[in-house]
Amino acid sequence: MSLVIISPGKDPNIWIDEFHQLDPELEFEIFPEVRNPEKVTTAFVWNHPIGILNTFPNLKLISSMGAGVDHILKDDSIADHIPIVRIVDEKLTFSMTNYVVMAVLNFHRQLTRYQKNQSKKNWDMSNPEIEVTIGVMGVGALGKDVLDKLNNLGFPVVGYGYSEKINFEYPYYSKNNLSDFLKKINVLVCLLPLTPETENILDKRLFNQCTPATYIINVARGKHLVDADLIEAIESGQVFGAMLDVYRHEPLPKSHPFWMNSRITMTPHIASVTNPQAAAPQVIENIRRRNANQELINVVVRSKGY
Amino acid sequence: MSLVIISPGKDPNIWIDEFHQLDPELEFEIFPEVRNPEKVTTAFVWNHPIGILNTFPNLKLISSMGAGVDHILKDDSIADHIPIVRIVDEKLTFSMTNYVVMAVLNFHRQLTRYQKNQSKKNWDMSNPEIEVTIGVMGVGALGKDVLDKLNNLGFPVVGYGYSEKINFEYPYYSKNNLSDFLKKINVLVCLLPLTPETENILDKRLFNQCTPATYIINVARGKHLVDADLIEAIESGQVFGAMLDVYRHEPLPKSHPFWMNSRITMTPHIASVTNPQAAAPQVIENIRRRNANQELINVVVRSKGY
Repeated sequence: MSLVIISPGKDPNIWIDEFHQLDPELEFEIFPEVRNPEKVTTAFVWNHPIGILNTFPNLKLISSMGAGVDHILKDDSIADHIPIVRIVDEKLTFSMTNYVVMAVLNFHRQLTRYQKNQSKKNWDMSNPEIEVTIGVMGVGALGKDVLDKLNNLGFPVVGYGYSEKINFEYPYYSKNNLSDFLKKINVLVCLLPLTPETENILDKRLFNQCTPATYIINVARGKHLVDADLIEAIESGQVFGAMLDVYRHEPLPKSHPFWMNSRITMTPHIASVTNPQAAAPQVIENIRRRNANQELINVVVRSKGY
Repeated sequence: MSLVIISPGKDPNIWIDEFHQLDPELEFEIFPEVRNPEKVTTAFVWNHPIGILNTFPNLKLISSMGAGVDHILKDDSIADHIPIVRIVDEKLTFSMTNYVVMAVLNFHRQLTRYQKNQSKKNWDMSNPEIEVTIGVMGVGALGKDVLDKLNNLGFPVVGYGYSEKINFEYPYYSKNNLSDFLKKINVLVCLLPLTPETENILDKRLFNQCTPATYIINVARGKHLVDADLIEAIESGQVFGAMLDVYRHEPLPKSHPFWMNSRITMTPHIASVTNPQAAAPQVIENIRRRNANQELINVVVRSKGY
């Protein structure tokens, strides 16, 4: 019995250290160098290559490396009888919110302009603040926390979501009022779940309805954004710039124009990273429960998508 | 009767626009091109050259351009009978706190490392967060707000000040316990008032007592910091880096080594800038009161220093 870690582009060692401390007997395989695929009973995955899980004939448990499971559910080849579980970690909210707050403040206080001035030894005190109203698309647990924290820092905030909401604490716009929502804000944070309806929502049509020089922060999924439309909107001035943590293809190919766009600040999908100290015990516990034929924790309901 | 604006290195135009809207009749002089010094009755100043106010024989009111008046009181040549007033503006707290939060988050989330990686098209997801405990030196209105806001964002915070405090909301260290305070933290925010006792407090002796790789944020006054000691502490690794908004000499001379230090992020004294919309009406009101021989608002008591 072994556990295979499949997380292309991520360092598996932080996980191995953590698992070993909790269960020194646990055996590991690190994809793609799997020695004994038939011994693998648990897969711990993030963005696995589609179909790869079928190469483990004795697989009995699939655990996501994070809260999201869209990267697993998009693989239609996974047998229905293998349970899928995910990580539930309060620290994810802490990290996501603080990443978004950082992105908002760096725009509000024009950090990149000051960095450029510093490199030229240019002492220019003009326009030290841009007034911002922040709109958050997606007002679930994460979006709500972002709204609360930014509001507490003294910023006006507005929410947008697909469902109707009554008595929401902040101004709120639902599905059919996207245009009104965009008129109220000049910083747009995307925290929507990725569904067929939200895919490509950050496109030319949306950018054209924004207040000129709106700033875009995408921390949801790369597929929410139409890359070429963002670049065009920056060039036209309709969008001031963007802070992006997620991309259509990860790692982002070196040929992609985002890397060298001076109005785009990029991080490599690290806004909210599962914390091994919080997550490893949940994986070990689920392995124990599965071996004892007990009910698993944080099980994903495939039909709901989470 | 005219108003002279004396603010070397700052753009006076934002003020003129604001004053003109409130009082279209008001006449202006912009230092150093003063046409009729004898007509000047009000001086609106930030870092005026020492002695220059004596060149206006009919001066009847001096207004600071901000909350601070140390830049006025250090000029011994100002006649005692001329009242000095300052600006009181809630937005100063909003700006100061959000600047400090930005500086803390950029260190916590390692923004400069990611920016460097982006410039090299390097997708490196490792170590996305540094755990931080933030220590705030100076726990007056500004320091307390910084502590509250960072605490609300989920960070552990610690206060330090010169007076004893009972039942302070956060762990607190007073004057003689600086070393214990420094051991608890790895981000140090200086918000102390500048007094003979606090001048040069951020020196070699303090840095040597810090947790290794502590991050320094100075938003108080340049004279709190011994510049050469900071550079040495960064080179030894005792200090990780710094975000600085204030300097011993402003504008910072182009020959100063801070400009080109890759571990120092600089802004040109803009952390908390007086907002013309809030401040201009206070100046106009004080001119009206002085002309009507009424009691002024926000008068500075010279013996107290504020």
